[in-house]
Amino acid sequence: MAYRFSPAIAKLINALGKLPGIGQKTAQRLAFHILDESREDALALADAIREACASVTLCSECCNLTEDDPCDICQSRTRDRTRICIVENPRDVAAMERIHDYRGLYHVLHGVISPMHDIGPEDIKLRELFQRLQTHDEIEEIILATNPTIEGEATALYVARLLKPSGIRTTRIAHGIPMGAALEYADEVTLARAFQNRQEI
Amino acid sequence: MAYRFSPAIAKLINALGKLPGIGQKTAQRLAFHILDESREDALALADAIREACASVTLCSECCNLTEDDPCDICQSRTRDRTRICIVENPRDVAAMERIHDYRGLYHVLHGVISPMHDIGPEDIKLRELFQRLQTHDEIEEIILATNPTIEGEATALYVARLLKPSGIRTTRIAHGIPMGAALEYADEVTLARAFQNRQEI
Repeated sequence: MAYRFSPAIAKLINALGKLPGIGQKTAQRLAFHILDESREDALALADAIREACASVTLCSECCNLTEDDPCDICQSRTRDRTRICIVENPRDVAAMERIHDYRGLYHVLHGVISPMHDIGPEDIKLRELFQRLQTHDEIEEIILATNPTIEGEATALYVARLLKPSGIRTTRIAHGIPMGAALEYADEVTLARAFQNRQEI
Repeated sequence: MAYRFSPAIAKLINALGKLPGIGQKTAQRLAFHILDESREDALALADAIREACASVTLCSECCNLTEDDPCDICQSRTRDRTRICIVENPRDVAAMERIHDYRGLYHVLHGVISPMHDIGPEDIKLRELFQRLQTHDEIEEIILATNPTIEGEATALYVARLLKPSGIRTTRIAHGIPMGAALEYADEVTLARAFQNRQEI
């Protein structure tokens, strides 16, 4: 007979193993750590999960995760309300904000169009984007900042095509050699893109 | 001003970041995954943490984590009650049970003696071990299965010395070249140990 963890421990290991990137072995290690060393921290984690799930919703404007609706960025009086940057998920908003360069608004798609995974335009927050554009005629520029993956590119092209009739300026973030990287190690697609989009200096 | 996550999200990231091996970046990824995709799983995790912390205690006999006291192994009528295998933590019990070779009992120390970390003999479950030996005179062998680290070795030697007067047979698990490994890659200490402990075949 194989050694079986007691039901509550097995349940805990199983629940931890559902987190992304946490395999069975790591889940076991975490479970024993919780029970053996840090029950207080673990109970604080349980509370934090409950609290966050209860209080965090999507902003009705930009679909970012927020506790207040509209979110801080959509409510801010100091942001440039003529620009919307379209990103795939809330982590990308955090990444964009870290550059301290962009002062416009956001729209979070919560995914990308991916026929392979059966995700169509209606499965991401595109309807919300176009409703937003209809009620806000101050928008002058839409910046497409989806990831430079096949799906991210396709989604950007799809949105750009839908925006064409509106006459709103639509831009895509630049792709090229990352700063600090070496040409010789760049993949060909990136290098080709960097070459095509070369600029006067 | 740096981009700040809303309080409930920040609290969740912080609580996740306290798990061992989970850094700030991973904690952010997990937090957004929880809020964005799997709130149900996350609430199940919160429940599992609460339940496990409430129901799992230490076995009063062997100090292993258990929901029933004494634990299944200590209660079992089919285990060899003349042998106790001493291990550092509950994960080691699971590891030993996986070999399906040992049918005796366990004693979990919950740590090792480590002057560097200010952990003395009174900080691990040694008193419980000696109390147990006093009330159970059927014990014939104590197997020291602490890890082959400096602290694990020192703890094994310390326990062996304390057991000497009792006359109970005290053994240490063997150290040597792991099965499937190559001699040329073994460190010198392991190879020296394997050579010293060579056996007739």
